[in-house]
Parts: sequence; structure tokens; C-alpha cells
Amino acid sequence: MTHDCSFLEDLSLADDQFSFGESAREGHAADWGADRKGEGVVPDAVVWPESTDDVSAVLAAATDRGVPVTPYAAGTALEGHAVPAYGGISLDLTRMNEVVDYRPDDFQIDVGPGMLGSDVDDYVGPDGLFFPPLPSSGDISTVGGMIATDASGMKTVKYGEVADWVLGLEAVLADGTVVQTGSRAVKTSSGYNLTDLLIGSEGTLAVVTEATLELAGRPRQIRGGRAIFDTLEDATEAVFDAVRTDVDVARIELVDALCARAANDYLGTDLPDAPMVFLEFHANHGVDEEIDLCETIFEDHDVVRFEMSDDDAEMDELWRARRELSYAIPSYDPDLEPQHPGDVTVPISAYPTIVREAKELAAEHDVRIPCFGHAGDGNLHYSILVDPDDPAAVERGKRVYETIIERALELGGTVTGEHGIGQGKREFLEAEHGAGGVEAMRAVKRALDPTDTLNPGKIFPETAEGERVREEGTASGRRESDLE
Amino acid sequence: MTHDCSFLEDLSLADDQFSFGESAREGHAADWGADRKGEGVVPDAVVWPESTDDVSAVLAAATDRGVPVTPYAAGTALEGHAVPAYGGISLDLTRMNEVVDYRPDDFQIDVGPGMLGSDVDDYVGPDGLFFPPLPSSGDISTVGGMIATDASGMKTVKYGEVADWVLGLEAVLADGTVVQTGSRAVKTSSGYNLTDLLIGSEGTLAVVTEATLELAGRPRQIRGGRAIFDTLEDATEAVFDAVRTDVDVARIELVDALCARAANDYLGTDLPDAPMVFLEFHANHGVDEEIDLCETIFEDHDVVRFEMSDDDAEMDELWRARRELSYAIPSYDPDLEPQHPGDVTVPISAYPTIVREAKELAAEHDVRIPCFGHAGDGNLHYSILVDPDDPAAVERGKRVYETIIERALELGGTVTGEHGIGQGKREFLEAEHGAGGVEAMRAVKRALDPTDTLNPGKIFPETAEGERVREEGTASGRRESDLE
Repeated sequence: MTHDCSFLEDLSLADDQFSFGESAREGHAADWGADRKGEGVVPDAVVWPESTDDVSAVLAAATDRGVPVTPYAAGTALEGHAVPAYGGISLDLTRMNEVVDYRPDDFQIDVGPGMLGSDVDDYVGPDGLFFPPLPSSGDISTVGGMIATDASGMKTVKYGEVADWVLGLEAVLADGTVVQTGSRAVKTSSGYNLTDLLIGSEGTLAVVTEATLELAGRPRQIRGGRAIFDTLEDATEAVFDAVRTDVDVARIELVDALCARAANDYLGTDLPDAPMVFLEFHANHGVDEEIDLCETIFEDHDVVRFEMSDDDAEMDELWRARRELSYAIPSYDPDLEPQHPGDVTVPISAYPTIVREAKELAAEHDVRIPCFGHAGDGNLHYSILVDPDDPAAVERGKRVYETIIERALELGGTVTGEHGIGQGKREFLEAEHGAGGVEAMRAVKRALDPTDTLNPGKIFPETAEGERVREEGTASGRRESDLE
Repeated sequence: MTHDCSFLEDLSLADDQFSFGESAREGHAADWGADRKGEGVVPDAVVWPESTDDVSAVLAAATDRGVPVTPYAAGTALEGHAVPAYGGISLDLTRMNEVVDYRPDDFQIDVGPGMLGSDVDDYVGPDGLFFPPLPSSGDISTVGGMIATDASGMKTVKYGEVADWVLGLEAVLADGTVVQTGSRAVKTSSGYNLTDLLIGSEGTLAVVTEATLELAGRPRQIRGGRAIFDTLEDATEAVFDAVRTDVDVARIELVDALCARAANDYLGTDLPDAPMVFLEFHANHGVDEEIDLCETIFEDHDVVRFEMSDDDAEMDELWRARRELSYAIPSYDPDLEPQHPGDVTVPISAYPTIVREAKELAAEHDVRIPCFGHAGDGNLHYSILVDPDDPAAVERGKRVYETIIERALELGGTVTGEHGIGQGKREFLEAEHGAGGVEAMRAVKRALDPTDTLNPGKIFPETAEGERVREEGTASGRRESDLE
């Protein structure tokens, strides 16, 4: 069953602001997560709003008619966030990509949700400012997407996550109501914190149409480089020790030996196939003292090589293996496919444990697991390299993937540090938050979107009815029962 | 109409865990805000839970029977948060004041809501750790109270507010369901952010029974002191200039000439009756360079005296006028009473404007307004000094108070930076958040507390029915219509 979206013709949208054409619709059927799994669902229409009023009109009309609306922007999410699970409208926000207001004296900028993260940095850079939580994917992902997942990045270990740098939002509720959350003041105790409720809600509660971001001043001293270790345990223990010693580090990234090998192959470099920790230090004073402190700690963990530079080109070269990792891993072995990209996060004291256990599980179940990630946050990124044509291996890989998630929870962590739940991790929601927590979340969803217009089929485990609809491959109408 | 709370006898509470006695009830009728205004409401019973199970049992039973429950702890709120507006049960959480778990390697501590803020610092201090957002009142106010209002403190300019340092909560919903929010991981994108929804919700959505707080390492370099200016404009422009220049300051507090005079009178000191800025710098490196930078900026604004020390006793002495301000102001003139304690917050660029306008309004309406506050956050604390026996002056004072709030909103700020809405600021909620924003908040309240058991009569503007009940002075049953 498809949704009749012909009402779009009656709204005040220009002709080039909506399409029922196949190529537009198919171009909005998936995101990176769904692409990988071949799980796209083609929407019935695509709309490109150019204003808050456009968004409001589309949502009000869609809610009236029971048509699901799934926000879409860069499509770089890894858990199927932008897939229109039940068809309906894909609301493409990429045209709302302007700077609305810029107040450098207040370290604030108001931008549209479709703006690329790196464009924010480019815009404010001439004033010596930057947006600290920018994800590694910031040059291809949008501010709206980052807000939808409460994303974070390499610099989160020093500066925090996206939520820490959003002061307020303009957002449209399912019924078309426009709300302004937060304030331009740097702190407020006025009413419920709707800003942080919407951040990370993955487009299921409202569509963000403008965000007030905070900015930071660029540090006067930046040094970067890498450390090479003999064993993965040395590397993870060194990271833990540096973090608990409160070393002031701005990036501290783990890359395991398998990733190093993949990077060497991909880049044609001759680094040892050994665990590495990539580092960057930001400070206005004392950066060298912090580096010395870090090196001393790393020496306690038998660091083999510790290379640091203050030259941009040299830093780039030292970081190359880390930077190219997302290309290196998929090309590592043409027979193997990286499946189930995971991003569990644990308390830093548990980081050596989760990394060690991931590797033990891989050995035990005969799969390969490249491990890397924002180590200073306790954030482990991993995927399972398996031959996709070997069902037994695929099954073993899935089991390993799930076991790592379960162990992260047992260690006090979270099933996703920055990618979000989307479709891919719904089954783990209750394990993390308990039946009571999930029910409280569902109650909030029902309160703000009673007809389940906004991005249905995400975050919450699917009901039997939802499963049936998806298994039959039909883009059916949204099911209110999904929220029951 | 009173509420029959005899069901408390049927729960598994010890005899000393609940009371219907007059002295216990009267001791829970007000907080600092209500004390000031003589607006206490006596609850029908007081309960002292000692465990999460106790809280859950009381809430479930109270919700079943339509009895309101108002959380209470230190009673230091300024806007009537802890006043049981419709009677019922005052839930006194001060016995839940233990450290539940402490993980210094992860910079984390789990504490009960009744723990005093300063006790957290005392507990973790031997490990070189501290809880950065501790409010100035931290030695008399509780962690639960700070979470209820999303409080902040003098060090917020460097470290952020309470919400920035809470990783997760255990909380009990109105129906007795216990939820665990957040995670021990330092970041998570898993599901809705219930943690930040509950923080600042003033006990209207859930009762917090345990909080996981993040801690910071104590800086190796601390310097403190004060700067004296000729004019208030010089002082506020200097603060703005220092903040926009990104001076790394840990406290930056304004005290106007009227406050300085009050402090001189109270302390018997002979400081000039002039505007002052109190400063503290925290760093691991380069603290002297930051102080020099600050002094240079302050010199551009004609600073008269700039005194800094690294000696604890000297710093204490330099800060004395600021520290004693909350005692000095009320004793300034026995004929005048400080009314309407305000804490508006604006973007830092608007701070000189809001302070100047507050003074102009005072002159225009012939009232006196001592102004002070966490200037670096754009946070202005003020009260209106008037003769309480002069109704015209009282009325003029109220008008000035309200006008400052309205101006703060026009300048992009918030009606309360850290005290919360409580009863006192409900009338401003819609001006700040719009009808749509308030309705979204009410929808969330209805979703999580459909019978309005938890702290009814707070945050949301009262309905006509609620007004009537309160005017008649009866502690009536909660009114579901208050949420309509």
C-alpha cells in the first residue's frame, strides 16, 4: 500500500520543491546503513522545503492525512535513520542550508539544518572560531543530521558532544506547530529542556528547521602525532591511564593492528602492522608539558614510538592512516565485507576490557574485527569482516556483534555512543533502558506525535504488525500500534 | 479540603518515616522564596523515604488516591518549588544522602538526592577531584535540588551548568515506575535524552533517587582577586570584552556600587563604594598569562585597581565582599526589604545593556536595585529594595522587576538562568517559550504524570480554577485541568 501524496500539489510549494518521480524517490530510499544492508524503502514523494513555513505546511497536511514523514539530509547515518520505513514523504532538508544569523561576540551562529558541518567551520574560521564537536564525517554530513543523532567526533574527548554546543532550536512538531526551544543565553532553567529532548530524537519528535550553535575560540597551540605500541592491551591501557591522569588531549584515537595493516595496504605505507594511538593536543598554554606528561604515561605502557609535530603538513602525514581508515577497511580484502558497524561506548576504565573482549570474540568465532575509535571517550568502533556468501560466517559475525553490545551494557556503557538507534539497534533499546525507560520514551513520543507521523519505525522496537508490513516489502501506512 | 494520607500507615514505612504532626508539616510548608513572600502551604503529611522502593511505594499509592506529592530537600529554592501548592505529601529526600558508588578513575560518583553539594566536593577532594557546577549555596543545598532546577554556580563560566555534569539518573515516575536514564559512558546517542528532560523539571516529572555525577580534576594553578572600576558601564563592558576575547576565567562576578556599599556597611570594611569584578582563574598552565591578558583588557576599560593573589587567605580576603553579599544586602537598610530576587540571563553581548537598563529603571521608578551575579554567563542577579509598608513603592518595584525580565527576553535571554520557574515565574513561561512551546511542555507533563501527582502548581501558569483554590487558602486536591 502506498500513500497518496497528491495533496502536496495543493500546498504553496514551487514545482521544483516536490517530486513523485522515480529517480528522486529512489534517491531517498536509503542511508549508508541501509545501503550496506540493502534495506532501502522507496518513499511515495520527496519534498524539498525551503523555509520553516514549508516544513510546517507539509507536516500539518501529512499528519491530517496519515502520511508518514521521514526527514532526510545527507543520508550518511549508519543505522537506517533516513529510510522511510513506511513510505510516505521523504523530507529533504538540504536546501535549508543557510547561515541565518552570526554573532561572533557571543560565540553563536544560527544555521539551517541542511548546512554541512564543515561549512560552519569554514564560515566562522576567519574569526578564529570553530564548532568543536564536528564529527569526522563533518564535511559530508549536515548539522540537522548531527542534531538528530546527538553526534560527536574526535574532539569530543576535550570539548563534548553536539548536545553540549546547541543552545536552542527552531523545530516543527508533527501537527505543524513551530516551537523555539532554549535561549541565546548560555544557561537557562526555564521550563523543560526541549532542546536536549529533541537532540538525539532522530527526527521522531520534530523536524529541526534552525539551530543556534555555540562556537569556541581556536586554541593558540596545536600539536599532533601518533604513538605505536607492541600490543593492543598496551595501547588501550595507555589511553585509560592518560585519561584518568587528566592529560589535556583534544583527540586520542585508537587504531588496532588489523586496521593498521588495512591502512598500509591501502596507502602503500610501511608502518608496522601494530596498534597505534593518534593524538592531537589543543591549548593556549603548556601544550608541550601536556605532551611530555602523555609521553611519560605512554612509556609506562611500553610505547614503541611516540612522534609529535607542530607542522600542519607533518601532522597530516602522521595522521594519514587514521584519516583514510573508512576507505582502507572496506578495501582490505575483496572477499570480506565489513558488516554491522558498531559504536559502543563504555566508561574509560572499561575500555581495555571491551577492546580485549572484542578481539577474543573474533578469535573464538573465527571472524575478523577491525577496531578503532574515539578511545578517550571509551568509544569503540568496530565492524565484522566476513565473507557475505558464507551464511555460517555471517551468522557468527552477527552473534559477535551482538555480544559486544551486550558486554558494553554490562560494563556500564551504551549500545551507541554517537550513531544512534535508527532501525539497526532498536532491539537493544530495552536492554539498555529497561521496560520502564522505553515506556517513558514511548509516552513522550505519543505526547508530541500522537499519530506517529514523524520517522515511524525508528528507535522503538517494531511491533509484530510493523514486522509483517516490512517483511511483505510494502511501504504501508504508519501504524499507531507501533507506539503501543 | 485536605487530602487523606492515612494510606501511608499501610505502606512498609517505619514509624519515623512519616508524620501527620503539625510541626513536621509546618516545617515543610515553604522554601526561601515562599518564606520571603509568606506564601507557604502546609502539607497534609511529611514522608522521609530512605530508599528508591520507599519513593516508588509512596508515589504509586499517592497517584492511585489522587494525592499530590511535592519533593522537598533543603528548601533553599527561591521560587516556591518546594511549596506543596495543593497540600498532600511533602516528600523529604534528605535522608537519601549517601554516596552509593564512587569511581575516581572514571571521574564519576553516584549519590543520593539528599546529599549536600559541598559534601560531594569534600568526599572526592582527597583524590584531587571536584564537582565543578556547584552553586554558591552548595553547602546548604542538595544535589537533588540542583538537578531539579538545573542549577549553576560561579564556576559555570568555565565549566558549565549542573546538566553538563550529570551522566544519568535513577528516578521514579508518578506511577511508581523506576527508570534509569543515561549511562556511565560519557556520551550516548541511545534513545531519548530523559536525563536532560528530568534535569530542570523541578520535580514535576519524576522524583530523582540517585544521580551519577561527573567530576573534574582540580586545576594545578588557582589565582583569585578583584578589580575595581569607576563606573558600572566600565565594569560590564570589561567583562564582555574579556569573555569575547576568550580569557580563560573560572569565576567572573559583578558587584555594583550599591552592593559594595552594603558589603562595606555589613563587614565594616572601607572598600570604595564602586563597581567591582571578582575573578578567579583556574589552569594547569599559563594562569599568569591569562591574568595579564585580562588585566590588559580591563585597563582598556579604565580599571582603577586590579588585585590578584595565589594565596588562599589573601584570595578569601579579596573575595569577602562578594561572599557575604547575600547577608549584606538584606541588612543594608532596616526599612527596606529585598523583594523579587531575579536571575535573568542574556547573551554576553547584551550584559552591559541589561545592567544599565536595570539601573535606569530603578532611577525612573524610585526604587533601589542591588545588582550582582555571574557576569561571565550574562547572568544578572538583582532584587528590588523597597519599604514593604509603602504599597506604591512595592507596586513600582514589582513593575521594575517584571520590566527587567521582559527586557531580558527581548535581548535574547531567559527569564531564569539558574533559579527555575517554580511558582514565582510561571506567568513568564509563555512569553519565553511561546504558546507552542508551553503546550509541548504540558504534553510531556501529561504523558509522564497524567494525574498531575508530582509537584502540581509549578512551572505552568495556573488555571482559573487553581487560582481560586489558592486564593481561598485551601490546600485542595490537585486539578487535572491545570494541565489543560
